[in-house]
Amino acid sequence: MQQYKGWDEFHSKPVEQKIPLFRKEGEIFDVLYAQQFTRAELEYLFLIADRIRNISKTRNGMRFLGSLLDDKRAMLFFVQPSTRTFLSFQNACHILGMKTSEIRDASTSSEVKGESTEDMIRTFSSYVDLIIVRHYNEGFAEKAAWALNTHASRPVSVINGGSGKDQHPTQALLDIYTLERAFRNIGGINGKKIAMVGDLNRGRTVRSLCQLLSLYEDVEFFFVAPEKFAMRGDILDALKTKNIKYTLTEDFQSVIPKADAIYSTRLQDEYDIEAESNAIDYTHFYFKEEYLSMLGKNSVILHPFPRRNEIAVAVDKDPRALYWKQARNGMWVRMALILKLFGRENEAFNFA
Amino acid sequence: MQQYKGWDEFHSKPVEQKIPLFRKEGEIFDVLYAQQFTRAELEYLFLIADRIRNISKTRNGMRFLGSLLDDKRAMLFFVQPSTRTFLSFQNACHILGMKTSEIRDASTSSEVKGESTEDMIRTFSSYVDLIIVRHYNEGFAEKAAWALNTHASRPVSVINGGSGKDQHPTQALLDIYTLERAFRNIGGINGKKIAMVGDLNRGRTVRSLCQLLSLYEDVEFFFVAPEKFAMRGDILDALKTKNIKYTLTEDFQSVIPKADAIYSTRLQDEYDIEAESNAIDYTHFYFKEEYLSMLGKNSVILHPFPRRNEIAVAVDKDPRALYWKQARNGMWVRMALILKLFGRENEAFNFA
Amino acid sequence: MQQYKGWDEFHSKPVEQKIPLFRKEGEIFDVLYAQQFTRAELEYLFLIADRIRNISKTRNGMRFLGSLLDDKRAMLFFVQPSTRTFLSFQNACHILGMKTSEIRDASTSSEVKGESTEDMIRTFSSYVDLIIVRHYNEGFAEKAAWALNTHASRPVSVINGGSGKDQHPTQALLDIYTLERAFRNIGGINGKKIAMVGDLNRGRTVRSLCQLLSLYEDVEFFFVAPEKFAMRGDILDALKTKNIKYTLTEDFQSVIPKADAIYSTRLQDEYDIEAESNAIDYTHFYFKEEYLSMLGKNSVILHPFPRRNEIAVAVDKDPRALYWKQARNGMWVRMALILKLFGRENEAFNFA
Repeated sequence: MQQYKGWDEFHSKPVEQKIPLFRKEGEIFDVLYAQQFTRAELEYLFLIADRIRNISKTRNGMRFLGSLLDDKRAMLFFVQPSTRTFLSFQNACHILGMKTSEIRDASTSSEVKGESTEDMIRTFSSYVDLIIVRHYNEGFAEKAAWALNTHASRPVSVINGGSGKDQHPTQALLDIYTLERAFRNIGGINGKKIAMVGDLNRGRTVRSLCQLLSLYEDVEFFFVAPEKFAMRGDILDALKTKNIKYTLTEDFQSVIPKADAIYSTRLQDEYDIEAESNAIDYTHFYFKEEYLSMLGKNSVILHPFPRRNEIAVAVDKDPRALYWKQARNGMWVRMALILKLFGRENEAFNFA
Repeated sequence: MQQYKGWDEFHSKPVEQKIPLFRKEGEIFDVLYAQQFTRAELEYLFLIADRIRNISKTRNGMRFLGSLLDDKRAMLFFVQPSTRTFLSFQNACHILGMKTSEIRDASTSSEVKGESTEDMIRTFSSYVDLIIVRHYNEGFAEKAAWALNTHASRPVSVINGGSGKDQHPTQALLDIYTLERAFRNIGGINGKKIAMVGDLNRGRTVRSLCQLLSLYEDVEFFFVAPEKFAMRGDILDALKTKNIKYTLTEDFQSVIPKADAIYSTRLQDEYDIEAESNAIDYTHFYFKEEYLSMLGKNSVILHPFPRRNEIAVAVDKDPRALYWKQARNGMWVRMALILKLFGRENEAFNFA
Repeated sequence: MQQYKGWDEFHSKPVEQKIPLFRKEGEIFDVLYAQQFTRAELEYLFLIADRIRNISKTRNGMRFLGSLLDDKRAMLFFVQPSTRTFLSFQNACHILGMKTSEIRDASTSSEVKGESTEDMIRTFSSYVDLIIVRHYNEGFAEKAAWALNTHASRPVSVINGGSGKDQHPTQALLDIYTLERAFRNIGGINGKKIAMVGDLNRGRTVRSLCQLLSLYEDVEFFFVAPEKFAMRGDILDALKTKNIKYTLTEDFQSVIPKADAIYSTRLQDEYDIEAESNAIDYTHFYFKEEYLSMLGKNSVILHPFPRRNEIAVAVDKDPRALYWKQARNGMWVRMALILKLFGRENEAFNFA
């Protein structure tokens, strides 16, 4: 990365150009964008996650998992409010035996004393072996990884736990892991029809998930959104380039019978500039209990949570409602990812 | 709990009717109300606490304790400010080898994104094995346990670490454990005279403790409080029903020579609506150094802390002042409770 | 300490008179002032730190370190914002196997309920084995240690992690450890010329470091500061008494060629009363890239961080720039200190 004058120049480059720089010895070292993963890498992660999940079922297995990274320490730098992602990562670390440190309030940090981001992150890297960041600024995680790779002598991986409106790659990993498990016995993700529903313009999870789903064959998308919050052009262009079929629509009900998976999302009104969400009747994008009868018997419903009213609580009991399993899958897939970053997944495979 | 339409309906039922629903396979599963414990259950908890305390005295013993729940994780959801209860629970978990996650600031939680309490708690239960809650809303812990028992597939216990003005059952456990140890060689709690002193109307600890003391025989109460903050009628009615003697008085000094235990509490002025505490001369309810000479030689002084000036610091050195031991007892009895919830207390009894 | 009426009287005594009271059985028990350490004690700490650093290089070694204090618990009471010192201490504890509890926001603590500092600290000591405090009030750590030694039955050490403008003894330890390592093969610290640069009046780290450097022979100081923020008279008087040479100057460039170590510090403008920092041109005290050519080839550059612009980022790559190593040294030396407080350093020396 030495050829760039600074992060601003680096940041302006296309993601594809940056991806190789966040690999070491052929392997992903920093986890910043959903696009970093090849399909083989995804499938390997899911294999590790399955293995960990299996080992975790006994007390002895839990103790074994707790020995895998008991010499390592992680830091969670989560200055954007988050409960779910924070807990998921922290407990993933804890199960693997890692000790964790957390900064959750920027005002307790040295930022107030005028330190540069580069210095701050490099300082963190003095104390821990892994840095997980969630920040309201787009690109913050990339900047952190860039700073460490450019300056620091001690190699420390950075994982993006969500940055601004842009990327949330580990959410995409858990989403696709959930889909892969759901479709495992019915042909896998290839050829499936995925409906993404809601505020697709500002929901970073759907953006990242689209990128990962593009790695599979003959996947088809329905983007069900109010016109004002339709899927953004950059994603649509990328799909076009790859000859992936998609349909834009506001008519949720017509899509339900055709979809193998419904991926429901909430209105991201925290990004409103002038209360534009108020002009939308979002109830059109709610999954109501009566829709269950329209849904295919092998189809599934996902939601990245938190949920407001996008899916009726009565739907929770239906076996096709996978969103609670999906939440827990986040912990397993994050464990798989962390174990892989430290190159210790073989120990899990070798566990008797 | 399926017969109730929702938590609001469930919550309105009398505690006695709800208690059985928080047991599983005959054992307490969620710890919500002081009234849940039978006397036999209390005594068993104290036996476990004694055993743990004993094991903890050696380094080898501490390591053994640290192996008892090293495959488990707890979450402390403490959005009402608390240092003491938080530290006591967290260190209890840590001694038993549990990893802990904490949410201490509601603004870092998904509550801000419009998630329901039920969804939030169920999400927590995806990542951990035990949820300890402290909340400013009466009934919050009950609602959490209700939500998990009604909806979640993964059984996760909830412990109430204090909710609103209502219940603080583990405080009552440590109080009564302290009394039990104090009176162990002089006939036990049966027949003892307990003076509760101060703001008895708004102090949830005295309410919970009264309920537990009612399980013993011939206990007698002195409720020493300013008229405005006298013990509430619901507790008095419950005592009457059980034929338990009590006296209401404002005259602290007359009670001291008669009491086997003085349980002193501070003014709960954080619950003032229109500064009603200002009208009270609370110094009448202070235990002054010179009162020590009036106190029986086997009598004891307790205080749930934090203390302002309710007990003179000079009293601390007197061997009858048990409030510092009482604080530490909280850690032991919470360890006993947690170990019991996971059904692993036998391992402690079997430790050589 | 029983001879003092209260902490206020105790606090007013000279440090030298107080030092013996914070030792137990001949060893330092509470770490409050830089002046507490003898030179022999410093050198022993550095020996332990070297040993720990060495053991940490293997996974097996890390696991061994994690067993040294796995029966102990620390509390970090850090109500003054701090990232660096907090993380350094917390990870030091974690590597040694200690579980940690943290209070980082005074509003979550019992302070709000009107509890005395003495009661609050004594409560903490009920749950943990070590208390590390950082507070905006000068003397807070001393008061905490004083309270525990005067009142509590359970001996719990207090470490001062920075209090007000006054003391930051563990920062001084890591600074001098860094110097000791830098000069180890060129005669040690004895006879070295140390330039301290910047806001020397309000920087507590330079004050503590001066006191430790005074333990070495023939050390000479250059105090390079704007007149308004020159080193305070109390330190200068102490140096005079010990016949230690020093020079006061505002001319940074003239000092660079003569110095064996440059200790750069930032403007402490958070202590401004009426924006007095604005009147200073602090750029005179910046270490610019071109100064590297004026610096001796065995000389070194330190900075306690956070940095604003006191040292050009381009300087970081120079092998004489030790400030990043210095940050990490903080973790090692704090581990050494904690291990020594618990008297378990021999186990590290005996590790094969």
